[in-house]
Amino acid sequence: MLEALKEQVFAANLQLPAHGLVVFTWGNVSGIDRASGLMVIKPSGVSYEEMTAKDMVVVSLQGDVVEGSLHPSSDTPTHLELYRKFPSLGGVVHTHSRWATIWAQAGRDIPAYGTTHADAFYGPVPCTRALTEEEIHGEYELETGRVMVETFQKKRIDPQQVPAVLVKAHGPFTWGSTPEDAVHNAVVLEEVAMMAWHTEALPQGAARAPMQQALLDKHFLRKHGPGAYYGQTK
Amino acid sequence: MLEALKEQVFAANLQLPAHGLVVFTWGNVSGIDRASGLMVIKPSGVSYEEMTAKDMVVVSLQGDVVEGSLHPSSDTPTHLELYRKFPSLGGVVHTHSRWATIWAQAGRDIPAYGTTHADAFYGPVPCTRALTEEEIHGEYELETGRVMVETFQKKRIDPQQVPAVLVKAHGPFTWGSTPEDAVHNAVVLEEVAMMAWHTEALPQGAARAPMQQALLDKHFLRKHGPGAYYGQTK
Amino acid sequence: MLEALKEQVFAANLQLPAHGLVVFTWGNVSGIDRASGLMVIKPSGVSYEEMTAKDMVVVSLQGDVVEGSLHPSSDTPTHLELYRKFPSLGGVVHTHSRWATIWAQAGRDIPAYGTTHADAFYGPVPCTRALTEEEIHGEYELETGRVMVETFQKKRIDPQQVPAVLVKAHGPFTWGSTPEDAVHNAVVLEEVAMMAWHTEALPQGAARAPMQQALLDKHFLRKHGPGAYYGQTK
Amino acid sequence: MLEALKEQVFAANLQLPAHGLVVFTWGNVSGIDRASGLMVIKPSGVSYEEMTAKDMVVVSLQGDVVEGSLHPSSDTPTHLELYRKFPSLGGVVHTHSRWATIWAQAGRDIPAYGTTHADAFYGPVPCTRALTEEEIHGEYELETGRVMVETFQKKRIDPQQVPAVLVKAHGPFTWGSTPEDAVHNAVVLEEVAMMAWHTEALPQGAARAPMQQALLDKHFLRKHGPGAYYGQTK
Repeated sequence: MLEALKEQVFAANLQLPAHGLVVFTWGNVSGIDRASGLMVIKPSGVSYEEMTAKDMVVVSLQGDVVEGSLHPSSDTPTHLELYRKFPSLGGVVHTHSRWATIWAQAGRDIPAYGTTHADAFYGPVPCTRALTEEEIHGEYELETGRVMVETFQKKRIDPQQVPAVLVKAHGPFTWGSTPEDAVHNAVVLEEVAMMAWHTEALPQGAARAPMQQALLDKHFLRKHGPGAYYGQTK
Repeated sequence: MLEALKEQVFAANLQLPAHGLVVFTWGNVSGIDRASGLMVIKPSGVSYEEMTAKDMVVVSLQGDVVEGSLHPSSDTPTHLELYRKFPSLGGVVHTHSRWATIWAQAGRDIPAYGTTHADAFYGPVPCTRALTEEEIHGEYELETGRVMVETFQKKRIDPQQVPAVLVKAHGPFTWGSTPEDAVHNAVVLEEVAMMAWHTEALPQGAARAPMQQALLDKHFLRKHGPGAYYGQTK
Repeated sequence: MLEALKEQVFAANLQLPAHGLVVFTWGNVSGIDRASGLMVIKPSGVSYEEMTAKDMVVVSLQGDVVEGSLHPSSDTPTHLELYRKFPSLGGVVHTHSRWATIWAQAGRDIPAYGTTHADAFYGPVPCTRALTEEEIHGEYELETGRVMVETFQKKRIDPQQVPAVLVKAHGPFTWGSTPEDAVHNAVVLEEVAMMAWHTEALPQGAARAPMQQALLDKHFLRKHGPGAYYGQTK
Repeated sequence: MLEALKEQVFAANLQLPAHGLVVFTWGNVSGIDRASGLMVIKPSGVSYEEMTAKDMVVVSLQGDVVEGSLHPSSDTPTHLELYRKFPSLGGVVHTHSRWATIWAQAGRDIPAYGTTHADAFYGPVPCTRALTEEEIHGEYELETGRVMVETFQKKRIDPQQVPAVLVKAHGPFTWGSTPEDAVHNAVVLEEVAMMAWHTEALPQGAARAPMQQALLDKHFLRKHGPGAYYGQTK
């Protein structure tokens, strides 16, 4: 069942330690088959060394395990909420990667300070509000998904233009058209978060104000959308 | 004698350089067999490349070498004091890992700034007071163990809930149910220490106040104790 | 056509990930054959793992593709402008390497704080002004080249003495007598940028003023020009 | 001639890139045979990959090349001055390692903030004054050696107790009883420099004052001198 997607999700999960984004089992990637409405996700607490493509768990959009002998990631309800509310998503990644998590712990959006940011994210990467005690004591993982969706709705951000978010006091989620694309955005987010930290903390830095809007437009639109002209395909 | 434990302690010691926690011989792992009251520990000043499982030294809880031709780690009296006063410990690790040592040198507890911390440590990781001159000139390594125990007793911290401590102007000790578990906590501590440093030092960071108590509770208790639901086993 | 130069440019491109200067395809190296006025450059958006020397694209100084089935790097007009206005250049490198990009995002020149800097760069590494909206909306990549040339002309800097520049809110370009030499300068720039950041941010640092002019002279001139005496050749 | 020492010096030079202390050829190790008064040193500007033990150059204490077809390191007069004035030295290392160089560029001594420092350096690692213009324009490399010796003499520091120094706006030199021991101290210096930087820059850090003298004494003397009890030999 969904063997090709399982292979994609498995391979994307292995990219997390390869890119230095996770320690132990602190990360997970999922992918969705929109035709059947089924999500494939990493099992919970299984090490990357021992895992095989067969261990991937198939879950319905409502949260029922459809195939797989292992428990799915404990973050499954969070992934599902993102897929339900953001229909353009094909893959979702969660990590505790160092630099993105630092911004999440500081409770701050990551400003767009340069073209590395603009090539992937069309504006600041937002940080959610804190969850309420009720949300934490309730369906915690689901509420974590809800607060991300709320953040994009309140700030009127298009999740295709800014494929990343920081959950306050927790860490980053990224997404994309495929699991691989979601991992790509997780890597870019980590680079951007590291450079933004040091851009702000440099004494006498002229920046602290985000980059020009015109430059942000230019770089995002040169790689994304109908006018893109980067790479070999158009 | 205790061959299985020697293999565990040996393997756990090799995990320290594998995780980038030690330079040269700056670290040691021990394990204890509670039935016999015997501790197995790395020999002093032997390089990780040359060491074999047979080189591990067996020491009684009173500090007598029971088996082994090499001197045990010079930190042996410190490990023994932790095992004597904290009966739940099965393994102990000491390193001079960079980020944890920085907090120890700064003489500060590491605040809980996010869920990465909360997943492993149920509250701040405490830093001891400085040793007195009398303690330094006396049984120094034993006194180093005593000041850690004193810190947990005075602050009423349960060593099973916060399996790590910083010795002021020195470095971290961590522990766990097994030597491997103690190494796991040493790795988590290093991640948490690195991220807490940058959370505090980010200009305009909203944090500087620790995370919500409700979120700390949620994350620690979802991985530890009777209500845990992370991973494959319950 | 220009097979030897293609091999050089290909090998120099592979040096970028080997030195940790690029993530994914975020960098490119070109070289020029001054006799024919033809430039060889990396194709756009092709991964370093898949690329071969045959994929390098040959472009005229006016920007026409002379040989090659792939699109050349989208930064091609930037490289060409540098070759047209700085006739001593034999190779050009562009990356988004972390530390140099941080200074570019902060909009600051990198001061000469020590002999590591002086061995390669005879004075501060300049940062350009921001591009105007007209320049961004016009021939953007060409204007990026023009603003670098303008920076050197206005500040009367000799590009052979300072073979590097930061494009504001973007990242570094370096150059040299060959593609390999340009990569060498990209590596040095990254080291220098990292150390300058921490020299400035150290509390109570006596520095913040650049190094002595006499020491800058000594180190640059001991490695470059007619009086050089470093290495095996004179 | 001095084949065993050449092998030692060669192996010690290769340890520099292995420990991440050098980029390209930015470092050199020498060793001395005190019986003959001859020093063995790395050739100038030769890459670590191409170098063999046979390429090591033999130089007299007065600076004459006694054996070897390559030019010795351009820092040769600096090494020789250290050997002439500090008779206990058996090996000398020079690098531009990042963290030690940052302190040198900031013109600051590295304070002793913890036991990692105390295990190797019995007090702050001093930074020299700036060279005068006359010294820079004169026998520059010799004067670099002289200002290090002057620093130790004026501050009454024993080079056996503090086997490292920072040359202002340049970088570190370390030494030891053998070339290997000098490399060991270069590695320790880099760790200590990194941790001291972050100890100072942590907001609200209680430190900023060096560690207690009693703890500094305890750790240095437990590893060095007649009362040492660390490791397998006494």
